Amino acid sequence: MSRVVKLAVIAGDGIGPEVIAEAEKVLDAATAHSDVTFDKTRFSLGADRFLATGDVLTEDDLAGIAAHDAILLGAVGGTPNDPRLADANIERGLLLKLRFSLDHYVNLRPSKLYPTVPGPLKNPGEVDFVVVREGTEGSYVGNGGVLRQGTEHEIANELGVNTAHGVRRVVEYAFELAETRRKKLTLVHKTNVLVNAGKLWKRIFDETSEKHPDVAVDYMHIDAATMHMVDNPSRFDVIVTDNLFGDILTDLAGAITGGIGLAASGNLNPSGEFPSMFEPVHGSAPDIAGQQKADPTAAIGSVALLLDHLGLAAEAQRVTRAIEQDIAERTDEPRTTAQIGDAIAARLTA
Amino acid sequence: MSRVVKLAVIAGDGIGPEVIAEAEKVLDAATAHSDVTFDKTRFSLGADRFLATGDVLTEDDLAGIAAHDAILLGAVGGTPNDPRLADANIERGLLLKLRFSLDHYVNLRPSKLYPTVPGPLKNPGEVDFVVVREGTEGSYVGNGGVLRQGTEHEIANELGVNTAHGVRRVVEYAFELAETRRKKLTLVHKTNVLVNAGKLWKRIFDETSEKHPDVAVDYMHIDAATMHMVDNPSRFDVIVTDNLFGDILTDLAGAITGGIGLAASGNLNPSGEFPSMFEPVHGSAPDIAGQQKADPTAAIGSVALLLDHLGLAAEAQRVTRAIEQDIAERTDEPRTTAQIGDAIAARLTA
Ligand SMILES: CC(C)[C@H](C(=O)O)[C@@H](O)C(=O)O
Ligand SMILES: CC(C)[C@H](C(=O)O)[C@@H](O)C(=O)O
Repeated sequence: MSRVVKLAVIAGDGIGPEVIAEAEKVLDAATAHSDVTFDKTRFSLGADRFLATGDVLTEDDLAGIAAHDAILLGAVGGTPNDPRLADANIERGLLLKLRFSLDHYVNLRPSKLYPTVPGPLKNPGEVDFVVVREGTEGSYVGNGGVLRQGTEHEIANELGVNTAHGVRRVVEYAFELAETRRKKLTLVHKTNVLVNAGKLWKRIFDETSEKHPDVAVDYMHIDAATMHMVDNPSRFDVIVTDNLFGDILTDLAGAITGGIGLAASGNLNPSGEFPSMFEPVHGSAPDIAGQQKADPTAAIGSVALLLDHLGLAAEAQRVTRAIEQDIAERTDEPRTTAQIGDAIAARLTA
Repeated sequence: MSRVVKLAVIAGDGIGPEVIAEAEKVLDAATAHSDVTFDKTRFSLGADRFLATGDVLTEDDLAGIAAHDAILLGAVGGTPNDPRLADANIERGLLLKLRFSLDHYVNLRPSKLYPTVPGPLKNPGEVDFVVVREGTEGSYVGNGGVLRQGTEHEIANELGVNTAHGVRRVVEYAFELAETRRKKLTLVHKTNVLVNAGKLWKRIFDETSEKHPDVAVDYMHIDAATMHMVDNPSRFDVIVTDNLFGDILTDLAGAITGGIGLAASGNLNPSGEFPSMFEPVHGSAPDIAGQQKADPTAAIGSVALLLDHLGLAAEAQRVTRAIEQDIAERTDEPRTTAQIGDAIAARLTA
């Protein structure tokens, strides 16, 4: 009785194809002896595609991707300041378009600090937390507009939209996740300034908390949260926050755990209506593209999240363990992207 | 020929009165032999005042404060979760009301790491930068609204407003400040997502840059900026950014330079139409109030910014030097709030 998973693969730009090659290698190794096979479709999307065709993401692309069970994405985005990309906005037109169209309302970003990884903090303690970032609302909605553009009287508005529906589902996910971990959930927002959105988040957080009395809760303003993140990151277990604060906090989390070369993420649609998408937090890093310098660990970690999402918990754990063992044995000796991928894959076939 | 400066003093709540007492001590010592005298009016504002009278900031308070040349503020805000303060919103009703009413469009926040101060970073290098935070726009404007409040269909909107006028004046200030320093200015925003506001900021930044060819410029997304702040803070000289990103970045900056007990700030109205306001970045810390445990250095640093703003550059420099000497000679021996104030004041009268 074999199960076929239809996987859309978007390798993307820059180092995307290199890290995705290793991610696929590990995915294959992890599932070689299981009853799951992956039926892959490759989508050529990103800056290179835009330069070649002028398209960022067509309705056909989107429909094609949506017909899959899951998505694995490398990184998208061209060289900064490339004049040919000035109006492309790959981020809004591709990455965010996918997250919004496929209703990826949970952006799951785990952070863990490994003893062998040289992080920037003197006394980090045990760092092992997960940020549950809302993925479909807030100031990412792209609502707003511009008046008198290009003049001395220009007004540029950005509207942040937050709904009870959108907040409740991500907060509920975070409580449930906290229950599988150390049972501590921190809400991060800026309720003293963004009072409309803040009151909504706080109300729903408090209401949901009553249904999960076993989870200890606290609240922190985003500015204070960045301080705690460098002063005492081990205090965090699960953090739930809005789209923009989650974006900021997870990059900072990446930095304190040794760089976003290790940070994996899942853009989840837990209701299952649309395929979820798994991607490293890092960008396309065009400056080191094609040189086998990129660390594929974040992409491989995203494969572990993918397996977990597909219900393949044992396979996910094996990948995570292989990554952790690889990291634990790291030395100063530089390795190519493929060497790291090979080493992690070898632990799975051994 | 003596000059009288009318100074509004808002000691505020919690540790506010303690740190302001030391700030005034140092202000007096620094100007004892100058031809400037301060005519002080004390305004009782904050959570305590609200609990006593039900008022946060009346029109009379505001008019009274506006009639001064400058404002020295300690900290405002009551005990978190005090049910009697649930609807007070001291932050929006008092602190932000002052910043907006008095058109404090430059929120100036210097950060410096001293060798004797134990910061959280392993290898910070030389950290000495200034964040120029916009103070009257962005998502702090309090525009927006709520539909179907308290229901499962609630929509809470937060509108971020950015104008050419508002952005240009703060960007120009930042370029001029950079010219007096190491001539490096970094714009921090999130132009790839907040495209309306981002395009406006970028356009005005680029236009202003052309008038200041001696200042080297770069651009960073807010998420990346938090990474650089912990990985390589010495790369920054002057940063210009919007109200919300500035809020977040300056707390993080406070953390990496050893805590916001040292972080001073000025809310400036450089046009001189309204009094500028000087305050430590830290809050009222009700948990340690009245115990002489607070470090008054941030409040005293705010006095240096006040003196500088009043054109008393020599006095400002003497206060800054006294603070730096005090910090340089710090040991593990604990000192009371007053002992630190006395020590810094003594260096000025010696
Ligand atoms: C590239 C950008 C649109 C994106 C975001 O802001 O979400 C990135 O920073 C991330 O965190 O995945
Ligand atoms: C208290 C709060 C309203 C304020 C802000 O967000 O500006 C504070 O965090 C600050 O940075 O001065």
